[in-house]
This record gives sequence, C-alpha cells and structure tokens, in this order.
Amino acid sequence: MSALLLRADADGICTLTLNRPEARNALSRPMMAALQAELDRIGDDRSVRVVVLTGAGPAFCAGHDLKEVRGLDTSDYLPLFEQCSRLMMSLVHLPQPVIAKVHGIATAAGCQLVASCDLAYAADTARFATPGVNIGLFCSTPMVALSRAVPRKAAMEMLLSGQPVLAVDAVRHGLINAALPVEELDAHVAAMAATIAGKSPLTLKIGKEAFYRQLEQPLAEAYAYASRVMAENMMARDAEEGIDAFLGKREPVWCGG
Amino acid sequence: MSALLLRADADGICTLTLNRPEARNALSRPMMAALQAELDRIGDDRSVRVVVLTGAGPAFCAGHDLKEVRGLDTSDYLPLFEQCSRLMMSLVHLPQPVIAKVHGIATAAGCQLVASCDLAYAADTARFATPGVNIGLFCSTPMVALSRAVPRKAAMEMLLSGQPVLAVDAVRHGLINAALPVEELDAHVAAMAATIAGKSPLTLKIGKEAFYRQLEQPLAEAYAYASRVMAENMMARDAEEGIDAFLGKREPVWCGG
Amino acid sequence: MSALLLRADADGICTLTLNRPEARNALSRPMMAALQAELDRIGDDRSVRVVVLTGAGPAFCAGHDLKEVRGLDTSDYLPLFEQCSRLMMSLVHLPQPVIAKVHGIATAAGCQLVASCDLAYAADTARFATPGVNIGLFCSTPMVALSRAVPRKAAMEMLLSGQPVLAVDAVRHGLINAALPVEELDAHVAAMAATIAGKSPLTLKIGKEAFYRQLEQPLAEAYAYASRVMAENMMARDAEEGIDAFLGKREPVWCGG
Repeated sequence: MSALLLRADADGICTLTLNRPEARNALSRPMMAALQAELDRIGDDRSVRVVVLTGAGPAFCAGHDLKEVRGLDTSDYLPLFEQCSRLMMSLVHLPQPVIAKVHGIATAAGCQLVASCDLAYAADTARFATPGVNIGLFCSTPMVALSRAVPRKAAMEMLLSGQPVLAVDAVRHGLINAALPVEELDAHVAAMAATIAGKSPLTLKIGKEAFYRQLEQPLAEAYAYASRVMAENMMARDAEEGIDAFLGKREPVWCGG
Repeated sequence: MSALLLRADADGICTLTLNRPEARNALSRPMMAALQAELDRIGDDRSVRVVVLTGAGPAFCAGHDLKEVRGLDTSDYLPLFEQCSRLMMSLVHLPQPVIAKVHGIATAAGCQLVASCDLAYAADTARFATPGVNIGLFCSTPMVALSRAVPRKAAMEMLLSGQPVLAVDAVRHGLINAALPVEELDAHVAAMAATIAGKSPLTLKIGKEAFYRQLEQPLAEAYAYASRVMAENMMARDAEEGIDAFLGKREPVWCGG
Repeated sequence: MSALLLRADADGICTLTLNRPEARNALSRPMMAALQAELDRIGDDRSVRVVVLTGAGPAFCAGHDLKEVRGLDTSDYLPLFEQCSRLMMSLVHLPQPVIAKVHGIATAAGCQLVASCDLAYAADTARFATPGVNIGLFCSTPMVALSRAVPRKAAMEMLLSGQPVLAVDAVRHGLINAALPVEELDAHVAAMAATIAGKSPLTLKIGKEAFYRQLEQPLAEAYAYASRVMAENMMARDAEEGIDAFLGKREPVWCGG
C-alpha cells in the first residue's frame, strides 16, 4: 500500500488517511489510484465494518492536483475525470458505510469526497468550497455529489461564487451531519463508527445498496424493490437472530457478514 | 370499524387514532388492514376534507409487530412488506391531505408513517428513529419515504446508526413541519386542519395528486403536465368562484368536492 | 423595451425590474412577454455576465393578474400557463446566472420566480406564499419550481395552507440563500453579482447548463456526462488561463464568453 495513503485497522474500523499534507492531500492520479485500490480491497474484506476517511496535515483535501492537471495532454483530460468519478462512485457502492472525518478545508474534488461519503463530521473550523469557477474550470463532477446532498440554491451559491462555506452552514445545508469543536471530532467519529461497526455487516450492506438504488426510482417502483429487499433481509440468519435477541432482551450475535 | 383504529369526524376533519397502546400502536397485519380499509373508505367520502393520523397512549407508532413478524412463514414476508408499502402509498394517493400528529416516539414503519403524510407536527418531546439495524433488519421500506423527505446524510445517519432523532432535529431535516410543546400540539394541528378544511376539496385533490406526480418528472415534462393541471383547474366552478370572491373581497363558497 | 420592465446594465450586471407596482408587479401576459423577450435578448448578449431580477414598489411579485385571468376565454387558459412555464424555464436555461433580489412579498408565480432563479436573497421582512388554494386554484405550476427547491413537507405546507412563510424560514427551507436587513439587501446582492461577474462567462455557462441537466440523471449517467463536461471545459482557453494564473499567483484574464 502506498505511503500516499495510510491505512489503520482496529475493531472493524478501517481508517484511511490521505497522506500528502504538503500538497493539501490533493487527488493526484497516484493518490486516486491508491485510494481506488484500497477501496477495492476493502470491498472484499469482511473484517472491515466501517471505513473512516480523513487527511493528514492541516487540510482534508484540496481536490485535483492542478500542477499535474496542467501538465496533461488534452487526451488525458477525460480519463482523469473518469478516474475521479469512478473513485467517487466506489464510495457509494462500497458495501461498508464510509464516514468522512473533516478536520480542515475540503475543496473541489475534496468537497466531493465529503459529499460522496455516507456520513460526514467536521471540525467547526473546517471550510467547504467548490472554487473551480475561480480558475475557469467549473466544478462539474463535484457538483454531481454536492447537488444530491444539499438543496439546489445552496449548491448553486457554492458553485457560482466559489466562496467557502462554514461548517455550521454545511450542517444546515445537509452536506455534513454535524460540526464539532476540533478536539471532539476524533471521539465523535470514533463513537459513531463503533456504533455502526456493532451492527450486522450483512444488514448494512443490504441497506446501503438499497438506499442509493431506490433513490433513483419512482415511488411505486422503489416500494416494490424495497419490499423485496426487506423480505430477503428477513430470510437472513442475522435478522432472525436480531429479532430473537430483541424479543429475548439480550445482545444479538451477528454472523459476521 | 375495528377497535384497533378509532375514527372521529368533526367539521370535515377525520381523526384516525392507532389504538393499540399496549403494543405502542405497532403495525400488526390487522392494524394495517384496519387502516387500509379506513383510508379506502375516506378516499370516497366527500365529507372528509382533511385526515389527522395519531396514536393512543404514550407512543405514536413503533413500526411492525416483531412478535408477529417472527411467527410468520418465510412465504409471508414479501406479502407483509407489500401490504405495508401499499398502505404507505395510500397516504400519498389519498385525495385528502393527511397530517401526522406525533405526540410520542415514531420508529421504523411508524417513522415511515410520519414521512409519508403530507404534513407532520410533533411534540418537542417526540423522537424519530429507523432502528432496524439494531435487529439485523435494515429499515429498507421506511427509507423509501424517509429518503424522499430529508437530505441524504440525515437519512443515512438514522438508518445506519439506528439512533433516535430529537423533534427539533426532525424539523431541521424536514421530516416534520414543526415541533411544539406537547400541550400546544392538539391546538396547532386543529388550526392547520381547519385552515386546510376551509379550502376547496376539489382543488386540494387536484393539487395533491399533481404534487407527487410532477416530482417524479423531468422539469420540462413537469411543466407541461402542471400547465394542463392548472388549465383544467381553472375550468372548475371552484376556481371561478374563488377568483370572483377574491376580486369581490368576499368569502368563497366551494362546491364541496 | 416595455416600460413594464426596466433594464439597467452596469459592469456586466443586468438588473431587470418588474415595473407595475400598482399591481404588485403581477405577471400579466404583457409583463410575461416583456420579461421573456428580454431574457431571450440577454441569452445572446455576451456583455451580460449576471442577471438580477427585482421588482418596483413594495412587492416583489404577486403572481398572475387575476383580473386578466378571469377575463380570458377558457381556450386561453392552457396557453397562459404554458407561456408562464416557458418563462420560468428560460430562467433555468439562460446561460448567465440569475439572482432574485426580493425586497417584498413574492406570491404564487412570484414565488415561483424566486424558486426558479439560480440564487435568491431577500429582505428579512419579505414573505413567500403559494396561496392559490385560497382562490380555488392550486399553485400547480409554481410548485414545480418550489418542490425542487425545498423539502417536500415545507412545500406541502405552503401549498395546502396558502399561508405565508417568513424570510427566515425561507432560508431554512432553502428557497432563498439568505435573508438580510432590507437596508443591506442591495449591497449584498451587488457584491454577490460582482463576485460572479468576475468569473469566466464561458465557465459559468458550461456549469449552469450542466447543473440542471445532471440533476435529472441517475448517478452513473450524471458522472459520465459531467466528466465529459469537465474535459471539454479543460480544453477551453479560460481554464488554461485560470489554472496558469492560479499557479502563477496572478489574476486571470478571461476571454469574455
């Protein structure tokens, strides 16, 4: 595994740390490749219950590496953005929940990472921006994630103005779940990760997949699909065990995914 | 009508009360059947202008009846969730507006009831949760309604953690319209129900149906459809009467639906 | 250009003022035609970087002109609402960003104007309503824009009750970006308009078009589309210039759209 990306596993919680602090953890092609490879590995790793994504140094992630981008051949542009989009969709399609832990600024594709994670918690000093307009390059791929996370006018203000949004406003818009004093961020995320890691991995996988799929369906279709998902979930050993444990007022013991 | 479900009608407002307080108004199959039958009846009842849905005892509704669920044959699972989904869609398709009055906890399919109503008001002591993950059974059908009512990250936090949400946060997310001191809840809902009951039933029916339909359409299609809806609404006697009354500075007299 | 609509251009910012204060700037057919014609003109006018839409007199806009509507032949109803819908979609499709500056009440199609603009700022004394139910005519076309700007229950409360919403609640729902003391409104909008007018017009055009288009696509399709948009944006002179200026720590000089 690349030193660009650090991985630490404990108690079913896998923490991935973008580790290029001198470049504010920019998503260079090698960085994206490292993160993609690790997510692919985690998807098949039953020991991982929850993923926490964070960054080393003062920034969370500053988006693409503009020096690298400017040096590309024009024929490399589309593959670059496709690589980035594939990475963002991998967060959505990963069987395990992914939590963004945002201690510093998250801009452009870095803001998109936050928007793409299932959950996000930030230091109240963190800032969020899609400042592509400032360099003549609209944050078009980041907006795919952003515009699905926040109301339209909030997304448009970020995209058209390029101006940063305070953590408290990111909470208000729904981009992040909560903003906390920076010294409480680690403990808050650790507690939420532990809570989720205590659930049945199979159940989490079933539910996360169904969540994003049904969102794209009309209501009647979504209900037909979700009804089948719940019926199949009920057939699984973990649901039987969970309901028995609940009715018996004891802790459930999950199969382990 | 079943004692499982109480119905009281006054001044065009039909109040339905889930009445199985010892089971926290769980949506057993008989309870769902009783509610379905009553909604079907109300849909054809021109004397009902607005429906208020509430619960007896300390809880609003605790979702499915787990004892019943655990006793089912596996072949009954899919029909169970289809019955529940049909019920939730009946709230959406009912010609009359439906208001959830939530004085206590609303969990799983109980939370879905709240999300499925057109409007919802709660005591500030009420709590909302989709705790299926705690028993190995992801709240997949509840999330169909929940994820259409609140931003994605708010929905995901409820679904993945199973943790309850305070009424004040449910307001912030958009799951409910307002949270009130419990002693003010009845009066607030009564006032809103009376306000809506004073409108033309035909107009409400036209508008509610169009609301949910156009939401699933692309913008151009939605406008083409809504333009036709408005033009047809204009042909109705109630629109002529309403505009004449407005221009004449008098109260309108509606046809009665 | 009609006296119904005032236009003032300065520094790339085009301010359009609905100018029928005695009728609270109602969207009569001549008013809609004047606004449509002006938007069509602006769409081809490279000197315009940002549009600000506002109203003369105490109100922002009171929606359709009910006296006019009541005098129409029934065969004119559908063309009327189609004209209005085309106008609202023109705001969405205009290459330049449009900012609503809302100093007073915005009701029915006036509220729809606010919802249809890319950004909106209001005086904290402004009010928003979709009061069609009060006259038997549900705000069906306004709700197309409203229901895409705010959460469902917030939209439904406005539509079913007809009651006005305070500016502070309109912010909370996402209908407007911010509410300000009325004496600060002009300066706030002028600053935001100037900020956006300082960006590359080509980049704004590319981004705005892509924003609304990708919102209607499933995630994978949206990413495929947005990746192509970004790659094409990168080919443009303004992106090269913007990135070079950023890396060189100087101000970019845009092509001018």
